[in-house]
Amino acid sequence: MVFQPHGKRLKASEGKTILEAAREVGVDITSICGGRGVCGKCRIIIRGGEECLSAPSKTERHTFSDDDFSSGFRLACQTAVAFEGKTVVEVPSESRVNQQKLLLKGLERSVELSPAVKKVAVHLKKPSLLDTRSDVDRLLDALRPNTSWGPQVDYEALKKAPLVLRKGDWTVTATVWKDGEVISVEPGATKGCYGFAVDIGTTKLAGYLVDLTSGKIVAMASMMNPQIAYGEDVISRIRYIMEADMNLSRLQQAIAESINNLINEACETASVPPSEIYDMTVAGNTAMHHIFLGVPPNYVALLPYPAALQSPMDIKARELSVGISPGAYVHALPAIAGFVGGDAVADILATKIHEADDLSLMIDIGTNTEIVLGNKDGLVACSCASGPAFEGAHIRNGMRAATGAIERVWIDPKTLELGYKTIDNQKPRGLCGSAVIDITAEMLKAGIIDYSGKFNAESRTIRLRRNDKSVEFVIARKDETLIESDIVITQGDVREVQLAKAAIYTGASILMKHRNVRSEEIEGIFLAGAFGNYIDPQSARIIGMYPDVPLERVKFVGNTAGSGARMALLSVEARKEAGEIAKRVEYVELGADLDFQKEFLKATYLPHQEADRFPNVVKILGKIRNRG
Amino acid sequence: MVFQPHGKRLKASEGKTILEAAREVGVDITSICGGRGVCGKCRIIIRGGEECLSAPSKTERHTFSDDDFSSGFRLACQTAVAFEGKTVVEVPSESRVNQQKLLLKGLERSVELSPAVKKVAVHLKKPSLLDTRSDVDRLLDALRPNTSWGPQVDYEALKKAPLVLRKGDWTVTATVWKDGEVISVEPGATKGCYGFAVDIGTTKLAGYLVDLTSGKIVAMASMMNPQIAYGEDVISRIRYIMEADMNLSRLQQAIAESINNLINEACETASVPPSEIYDMTVAGNTAMHHIFLGVPPNYVALLPYPAALQSPMDIKARELSVGISPGAYVHALPAIAGFVGGDAVADILATKIHEADDLSLMIDIGTNTEIVLGNKDGLVACSCASGPAFEGAHIRNGMRAATGAIERVWIDPKTLELGYKTIDNQKPRGLCGSAVIDITAEMLKAGIIDYSGKFNAESRTIRLRRNDKSVEFVIARKDETLIESDIVITQGDVREVQLAKAAIYTGASILMKHRNVRSEEIEGIFLAGAFGNYIDPQSARIIGMYPDVPLERVKFVGNTAGSGARMALLSVEARKEAGEIAKRVEYVELGADLDFQKEFLKATYLPHQEADRFPNVVKILGKIRNRG
Repeated sequence: MVFQPHGKRLKASEGKTILEAAREVGVDITSICGGRGVCGKCRIIIRGGEECLSAPSKTERHTFSDDDFSSGFRLACQTAVAFEGKTVVEVPSESRVNQQKLLLKGLERSVELSPAVKKVAVHLKKPSLLDTRSDVDRLLDALRPNTSWGPQVDYEALKKAPLVLRKGDWTVTATVWKDGEVISVEPGATKGCYGFAVDIGTTKLAGYLVDLTSGKIVAMASMMNPQIAYGEDVISRIRYIMEADMNLSRLQQAIAESINNLINEACETASVPPSEIYDMTVAGNTAMHHIFLGVPPNYVALLPYPAALQSPMDIKARELSVGISPGAYVHALPAIAGFVGGDAVADILATKIHEADDLSLMIDIGTNTEIVLGNKDGLVACSCASGPAFEGAHIRNGMRAATGAIERVWIDPKTLELGYKTIDNQKPRGLCGSAVIDITAEMLKAGIIDYSGKFNAESRTIRLRRNDKSVEFVIARKDETLIESDIVITQGDVREVQLAKAAIYTGASILMKHRNVRSEEIEGIFLAGAFGNYIDPQSARIIGMYPDVPLERVKFVGNTAGSGARMALLSVEARKEAGEIAKRVEYVELGADLDFQKEFLKATYLPHQEADRFPNVVKILGKIRNRG
Repeated sequence: MVFQPHGKRLKASEGKTILEAAREVGVDITSICGGRGVCGKCRIIIRGGEECLSAPSKTERHTFSDDDFSSGFRLACQTAVAFEGKTVVEVPSESRVNQQKLLLKGLERSVELSPAVKKVAVHLKKPSLLDTRSDVDRLLDALRPNTSWGPQVDYEALKKAPLVLRKGDWTVTATVWKDGEVISVEPGATKGCYGFAVDIGTTKLAGYLVDLTSGKIVAMASMMNPQIAYGEDVISRIRYIMEADMNLSRLQQAIAESINNLINEACETASVPPSEIYDMTVAGNTAMHHIFLGVPPNYVALLPYPAALQSPMDIKARELSVGISPGAYVHALPAIAGFVGGDAVADILATKIHEADDLSLMIDIGTNTEIVLGNKDGLVACSCASGPAFEGAHIRNGMRAATGAIERVWIDPKTLELGYKTIDNQKPRGLCGSAVIDITAEMLKAGIIDYSGKFNAESRTIRLRRNDKSVEFVIARKDETLIESDIVITQGDVREVQLAKAAIYTGASILMKHRNVRSEEIEGIFLAGAFGNYIDPQSARIIGMYPDVPLERVKFVGNTAGSGARMALLSVEARKEAGEIAKRVEYVELGADLDFQKEFLKATYLPHQEADRFPNVVKILGKIRNRG
């Protein structure tokens, strides 16, 4: 078997899938679902030797058209070697793994620097017959002005102390955690003191390497959450965990390994040894938080959906297999409820809505979307399973925010001419989340889809066409793309967008009902999320993703879960604040709301079945239509 | 190869020693030194096939007389298989491993029961939509009246909590450490709450399983310290550790494994599952303490002999590979100095000499002997390498205190008739420590040895005889013993006793000089140690092991190191007291005393070169001689 254009060869044995074979020789093929035949992203083209391969699976027959099959398309995870032979596999551009561009930064709120760890260099008196104090007591005595109580010495640091003291000729640098525990000892006077903040999303991971002496980010890294291989959403992963005893630790190891990869990548970028990371904070939804800590999330999925753990927790990095300084702690931000986790707490911390007079709505969009409504007088929160559509999954030509992803789309409502912009201005390879929202809004504005989301067959554009399976709208033609086919948005894709945005809007509207708040009373909406690029708030409003308020009240704040995790890394005060936030926020269980289903169905319309809920959008759409 | 009387067979391959072969088939042969040819305890008798074995080693030629060789005696660790053949190996009675009888109990000082751990059973409200607190927060809320601050939950307990809460149908028992950390959670209401105290001696280990709800000992266990295989004394073990990086963790594992054996044995005796042990305390000399904790003891052996760690320390049992409740802590008693460890602190705690008005001398006899002098106004301490003679090693017929060991010997000074008593009144197999002291004192009283320790050739007893190597005194003749030879005490044995007792006396006398104290001012002497039976204070005084004071001031207090460790297990107040003791005691470095060598040489005489230091003993000896 040979992989093109890489030119890598191997003798693949019978029964092995092409995805497995590719991994064996280091050929990276995109796979969001980890080889379960769900995401449809591992497309390959067989350029010879197809007779040696297994017949197309049901999944493939569902994924590809006859045209596709005759062009040689297959899914790498579904295609197995039937017998040895000379197979030529082309990995098309859209299936090659590219560096993902995540919008890592979020709203920055400055915090006074007061990290949980600090380095203290001390010069010790050498032992003598007149002063035979032990190594550790000698060190602790010298540190006393810098510690509040004690002595506590991490076991790993304890074991190293005698050699370290002598190696540094009695000059030693201790890293002290919360003024109470020596978590590391190093010979001589060392300065480097870093922390790592992680946002564990259901689909994406983002990590921030922070210099704890300056508070500055020195490197960032991101990647897909490897748990996707075990289920795309929280519920399916919990189900997987409940299947067998070993599965929880398998997922824990997978996430720990990935975090280690993030750490190593960021450390390499910044030329910082991972051993100089002495503190870590993590924010994630409750299930991700539990899984990372190895705490069973089983009951989060069962009524009344209690978390196993809400309080903030400090756990030794080594217990979690995280490869930073072995005595370091990992601080997990507290959770609000079984389905509203430390990521929402971090969002609140970063947006400060818990301190504001103004009534705000915070929406952290992801596979699981957290919504918080309130102000300094009180906050309510809920969570909705919006799915991964805005992260490029479940969308025919959806992709991660990487080079060549279309990130902006616009349609002239009059001429129906279309324009787009790609990441890094490369030839397009697919659509990332922001473009999926744009295209839906633009098609609605141009009348290409109607308010029920259905394609308007009478649209005067050749971009709209019916293929053998469904109707689709062409965004970029094969000849202008980097892939072997057109980039389209299908009727099915639009449906996915409708479901996703309806889930979010419904969550928001139930919180509003709970607090007895009308749209016009909302003084600020914060849209958050680890996207490839800013979501266009206008597009999102057009499709009815959030309550219709004047646009100037809407702000895209980026990855505030990451920002909040970073604030907690920089300041023990921020950690305290996070603990108080988690206790203060009232959780609203959407499933318990009798109107949920009805509300949800109405919200699938674009922007909404009840037009009077979206006066501004209706006015805009009306204007365009009248013009057109 | 066949082992008799076991009848066990195996095909031993070339190069393997008989000791290794025996272990392979589960034949236990006594070996104190672990097969290094040092202890001479693994005697076997070859009853056939000697031509298949290696020639006698230098060690063996040194150990055995020609007679012994012609009787077939060899050392199992020195004899290797030269080529396969039918060898018959008899393991004589004295080389078979018997249950050791250690005097485990020591002076009991009652302490008010206030253990570091307590069990609290709570009934929790089931989660509902109106009360969705997390499992852990629910538990901590219920425990709040029983905890001083929090929440701290051990990581292992944390991971178990969700399943445990439901298994017990929301009744759960938490074990709380120091009112601040939940170290274990169990379903339902459970009661069993045990602790384990360990005395880690250089040569012996003693363990005590204690019911923490009543304070009562429910089982005891003891065994040899397996580190003996790597060196008999502290210094040789430290040297071994310095040889290679892996050696420290090898010794740590060896001791942890043995402690686990003690735990399992005691638990089996008392029908207590080891998982119901939630706390452990250890007392040991500084080097043993360091090795058990995996902390390098390297510098303890180098001037100015600083400990790596003196402060009391709590370390998770799982970090030390100790098989009790995984969230439990091991509390290591504090050390006084590099050569005076937590065992001495425990001795002081148990004998209360730090609170007394009276001036006391505490001598904890072992391979390493700790000596403490003082009262409530101040204490000084030192340590001396007295060697393992009193533990039966380095003595021709020495043995551990097991069935058949001679524990008492008496000689009529007039008739020179000899009597003895064995443990369990069995036929004798050898001499344990108390007998070694008795026989030396009795021979001195009877004039069989003179004050320089030399055998008096003119002694009118047929028990004294010259063999091909040296002079020896027969205590039990072959026909009355359970072994294949006479039980004797040799001139070399007497020399070992002289060196050992001189080391102890010198330590005591230097402390007395330091505090400017004369013998008659000492109001109490506490003789401690984990012996097979009480040392006879009279015999010990006759040979000059301790300053000559009236016998009514001398008390044998048993294994006070174990008692002190047990007190620390029962009471956090006792732990605090131990911490204060460790800080208060002044360490005296014997090596720094210019008179040490001179004092030591004078002290090798029986009882002492300066007769006026032992007026009472001289009077007794004089009386007997005059009578005789």
